[in-house]
Amino acid sequence: MITFSKKEQKIIKQLDELKQKSGSHSPSIITIADKIPEINVLVDACFLSNPYATDVFLEYFKRELIDTNKLRDFLEFYPSQNEIIAELLGSHLKIDHRNILVGNGATELIQAILHNFTSGKVLVNIPTFSPYYEFVKNKEKIIYNTLTEENNFKLDISSYIKLVKKEKPDTVVIINPNNPDGSYITYNEMKHLIEEIKDVENIIIDESFIHFAYEDTTFELKTVTGLIGQYPHLIVLKSMSKDFGIAGIRAGYVVMDKRKVEKLLQNGYLWNSNGLAEYFFRLYARKDFLKEYEKARVKYIQETHTFFSALSHIPGLKVIPSMANFALVKLKDDTKASILAQKLLISQGIHVRNCDDKIGLVGEYIRIASRTRQENKLIIKALRNIFDKNYEYKREKEISIV
Amino acid sequence: MITFSKKEQKIIKQLDELKQKSGSHSPSIITIADKIPEINVLVDACFLSNPYATDVFLEYFKRELIDTNKLRDFLEFYPSQNEIIAELLGSHLKIDHRNILVGNGATELIQAILHNFTSGKVLVNIPTFSPYYEFVKNKEKIIYNTLTEENNFKLDISSYIKLVKKEKPDTVVIINPNNPDGSYITYNEMKHLIEEIKDVENIIIDESFIHFAYEDTTFELKTVTGLIGQYPHLIVLKSMSKDFGIAGIRAGYVVMDKRKVEKLLQNGYLWNSNGLAEYFFRLYARKDFLKEYEKARVKYIQETHTFFSALSHIPGLKVIPSMANFALVKLKDDTKASILAQKLLISQGIHVRNCDDKIGLVGEYIRIASRTRQENKLIIKALRNIFDKNYEYKREKEISIV
Repeated sequence: MITFSKKEQKIIKQLDELKQKSGSHSPSIITIADKIPEINVLVDACFLSNPYATDVFLEYFKRELIDTNKLRDFLEFYPSQNEIIAELLGSHLKIDHRNILVGNGATELIQAILHNFTSGKVLVNIPTFSPYYEFVKNKEKIIYNTLTEENNFKLDISSYIKLVKKEKPDTVVIINPNNPDGSYITYNEMKHLIEEIKDVENIIIDESFIHFAYEDTTFELKTVTGLIGQYPHLIVLKSMSKDFGIAGIRAGYVVMDKRKVEKLLQNGYLWNSNGLAEYFFRLYARKDFLKEYEKARVKYIQETHTFFSALSHIPGLKVIPSMANFALVKLKDDTKASILAQKLLISQGIHVRNCDDKIGLVGEYIRIASRTRQENKLIIKALRNIFDKNYEYKREKEISIV
Repeated sequence: MITFSKKEQKIIKQLDELKQKSGSHSPSIITIADKIPEINVLVDACFLSNPYATDVFLEYFKRELIDTNKLRDFLEFYPSQNEIIAELLGSHLKIDHRNILVGNGATELIQAILHNFTSGKVLVNIPTFSPYYEFVKNKEKIIYNTLTEENNFKLDISSYIKLVKKEKPDTVVIINPNNPDGSYITYNEMKHLIEEIKDVENIIIDESFIHFAYEDTTFELKTVTGLIGQYPHLIVLKSMSKDFGIAGIRAGYVVMDKRKVEKLLQNGYLWNSNGLAEYFFRLYARKDFLKEYEKARVKYIQETHTFFSALSHIPGLKVIPSMANFALVKLKDDTKASILAQKLLISQGIHVRNCDDKIGLVGEYIRIASRTRQENKLIIKALRNIFDKNYEYKREKEISIV
């Protein structure tokens, strides 16, 4: 049984107000810090991002922009146009740049695709990332395919193919690994699936978390981006926020049919990258940066694996198997997700995602992101403190609440 | 008569290729530097931005983000959502935040408005900023109202009102001061105009250059933003790139009817600000920052005035009166704008905007931005070097071309 002091109850009220303003998305850490200074956030485990990749980016940023005084050029002047940045990416991805549209984060691209190419039914697996249904203009045309806990939220490929053939959507959305559960479809399964549904007009594969997935101990990246030549209806979306740890920069891209890219460029999306996004994309096309990044990626995957393993040993939690950098955690013993999330934030300084607004999730769930090794330890300690009666760590007492 | 050496001719070829890729917009300075390292750009007078405002921003940025190590927070984490940033702006502008939509630069907002609210005729004054016709989906519905050199490109208010009443557009676009000529409509004229056309569904007033305009020696800012309560069809657009010298950050906003803001937020535009844009908007709502900015603004206006005056004394040029930070310059004596722009760039390192692709401009024009005092002097020297036979400065010889 989780209880709150009077001081905590007052803070909960303020949090509820902030949450209401943010709609179906958590308020940002900056917003929370700004509006409720009483909360001392130690770990933002709401936030799906590789902190070691941020380190790598910041080292380059410091060395190449701050120490050289070149930063001004990237803030003062207009960044390059979409096609110029797409060319950079094209040479790195070994894909014709006319197949690439660069975005102000992946969200802009989700919006662009749903608003411009979707006119019929949209098939969305739930639980999912909410813009995939929120941004659909004709919401009555959305078909929800519910992923089940019994199957650890993994998509059942053969029944999915049957569903597509029966419903004939013009748009399907598959996030791989999926958000918020981390379930993963292997490269071979995905290739088979795409082949079977290749006539669907818009086959959106969102690979925003793909850098965290692996199929063997080489940790080799398995993206379907290269299949664009073979399957012209394929739309591979990529946020750079998560794997590269740069959510504040807003960088993403989509690989899709040239005609789709051209249609969007014809009346918009010209200058949608900011100077730091352009700098990032220039790094992303450089071998020296990617070599450093690769070390940060593998280190983080390994630590995440250790973290998930520790999580799964905490009584009261069921951890859904994940190939992403977060775990969906089912709460047993009638613990409410909203209560646990508030308690963790206010008394332990740990910010996790309460999933009780995620459609398609039956039961009480929170989503916990893997952070640095040290932060992951704090998360484990905080959860043990709440769930493990024999555990002695009492973080609550160490944090002063005004 | 302007002539080119063989080396220069080779560089011109490369420039032409770059220009073709950039469509109706000049390639960025980063792109030029990257693709043609032989060109040593000394002054980017293509670029419409207050460099002293950049200085002010960078001082804050260095003091508050770099020196404190807080920069990481703005690059690593997600920025706040649109409404949160709109609230900040609202308190500064003294406008209900529900009337404000924040954009990834003004271009995103131009695109959003034209794509979502325009269905009938669009009345555009030409010459203009090209996205205002390029982003219109039904281009056959655009009506062009040509501003004339005889009138120094100033909008004739009474015939404009007649035209609106005759054509019944659902969208009108007025940039004030106008780009590319800098012609200015006073606050009282604008108020009268808006009153007369208040029934037009979308009255777009683009005030991206308004901080450079003044009506008396107090240099007081005259914006129509405050009229939103009185005229619900008003849409006041604002790029922050120019007046605040931060084009690379991509920041802009629009003030318009609450229902229009809400409609756009309902299926998109949630996270379209990057971390540095959020930081900028936080500064923009701070009195200490605005006080520093105000000094930079007035200093720049005064230097710009001196610059325009010097420009007007160069033989071969007719300078159109401007209330913006750039001057549209008509070339006399059969000088081609394209040739002059290339010569200035390659031999003198001065980058100006060749306007021969601007629809509605009859004759040969270049647009020259005011930069720092020192840079403005270089521009004047370079132009005198080309146009004034008795002038001795030969910058050409000082610059080595590989």
